[in-house]
Amino acid sequence: MIVAFQGEPGAYSEAAALKFAPASQTLPCPSFDEVFAAVRDTRATHGILPMENSIGGSIHRNYDLLLEHDLPIVGEVELRVDHCLLALPGTALADVKVVYSHPQALAQVETALRQMTGVEVVAVYDTAGAAKMVREGNRRDAAAVASRRAAEVFGLAILKESIQDFRDNITRFCVVTKPGAPPAEADKTSLVFSLHSKPGALFKALAGFALRDINLTKIESRPLRGKPWEYAFYVDVQAPGTDAGLQRAVADLQDFCHWVRTLGSYRGFKP
Amino acid sequence: MIVAFQGEPGAYSEAAALKFAPASQTLPCPSFDEVFAAVRDTRATHGILPMENSIGGSIHRNYDLLLEHDLPIVGEVELRVDHCLLALPGTALADVKVVYSHPQALAQVETALRQMTGVEVVAVYDTAGAAKMVREGNRRDAAAVASRRAAEVFGLAILKESIQDFRDNITRFCVVTKPGAPPAEADKTSLVFSLHSKPGALFKALAGFALRDINLTKIESRPLRGKPWEYAFYVDVQAPGTDAGLQRAVADLQDFCHWVRTLGSYRGFKP
Repeated sequence: MIVAFQGEPGAYSEAAALKFAPASQTLPCPSFDEVFAAVRDTRATHGILPMENSIGGSIHRNYDLLLEHDLPIVGEVELRVDHCLLALPGTALADVKVVYSHPQALAQVETALRQMTGVEVVAVYDTAGAAKMVREGNRRDAAAVASRRAAEVFGLAILKESIQDFRDNITRFCVVTKPGAPPAEADKTSLVFSLHSKPGALFKALAGFALRDINLTKIESRPLRGKPWEYAFYVDVQAPGTDAGLQRAVADLQDFCHWVRTLGSYRGFKP
Repeated sequence: MIVAFQGEPGAYSEAAALKFAPASQTLPCPSFDEVFAAVRDTRATHGILPMENSIGGSIHRNYDLLLEHDLPIVGEVELRVDHCLLALPGTALADVKVVYSHPQALAQVETALRQMTGVEVVAVYDTAGAAKMVREGNRRDAAAVASRRAAEVFGLAILKESIQDFRDNITRFCVVTKPGAPPAEADKTSLVFSLHSKPGALFKALAGFALRDINLTKIESRPLRGKPWEYAFYVDVQAPGTDAGLQRAVADLQDFCHWVRTLGSYRGFKP
């Protein structure tokens, strides 16, 4: 099993891949598009993508990519985003004059960085890449904001841990692969469908699930830009795609929607 | 009318405030919490908050703050996030050795910055603050990623415009004020309620709206951390809070939910 992820070795996405499949190999990719390409071209057997964060919300970009490609979701994992301040062993907090990290991570540790007066904050395009720079540049005046795993990968010491503004910062990832039979242990299915914005439209669309006692664990509407009053809905349900009732509910959905896509059926993450 | 916003003069939130009420005064605040405090302490009559972005999703943090405070939503505005590369007049693109901006903005212009080889990217805690630094430091080797309005405020030239990775980057803002009568022109109401995750729960909760032909324009579930299987739902409906049918639908909702909060009733944004 080779899992493609966006970022450098030591990235949060790589940690999520190893949480999903501890014995797998991982393949770093420069972008989310490249993660899909790696699976399509069979350089990787699986790809892992962040879909949703407990502070920031759904990552619409990756829902768009799931719709563009025909790679079903076959797994799910949640990972706590726990930012650490990393430096070469022996570097003291007072020695740090510059901090490197990905802009997204820098935004999530604003409080901690504001307390480090006189320190320059430099953006680079990877949390793990920031850790690598500190190690390879042998920088005794620098630190990186990255994961605990990046500290292990690059042999850095942890100066401070859990420096994120909000402790409860959790990202949910999906694992995709080439089309094939869904995993036997699947108990959850992700769907996307499009509805016109009119009274009762969503109520009708949900009836097929409710009347069959199929539980929804996520629902989100998203306006379709360029198509006023048309919305895409992301829905996760607690049933495998092979469930006959779910299949009839999805068939019912086609009477109310412009289009329906099953993004995949997989075992939901159990903490 | 004095509108409190998070950021420095020239920030996107200030542009949104002026789009909402062109003749208003604006009050810069260091944080979203401070925006609420300014309205509560009557230093401002209104506050403006980003709630949702077309690429990044809902800003859950501001939904949490709306629930913590008793300041109703009374208005809504949408603003296109259009990042520009700003520099002192006379600075050429080839002169730029360092680029300053907020980490969030830096993350949104990744493609453009990667093309500027050899340029250092430095994070500061404000897009407009980045523009101010270039102006006040009289920096001929530096540029800022910020709005067109920041260029006007700080007398900078636009080296490049619309440099964001995704052109269709729109943020929806809400305007809050002290409790009082909702605006007479209100045609939209925002609600939050909490449901147990069980089959049919959402379907029952939505029945009161569907059966009264009240249209939903947004729905989003959010897991309540620390309360497994309990979800908050954000719902926007196309009806004023004074509508008798909506009031009965909200009363019905109380039979199915742990709690219901009306966040406000206001005129929905019309492009």
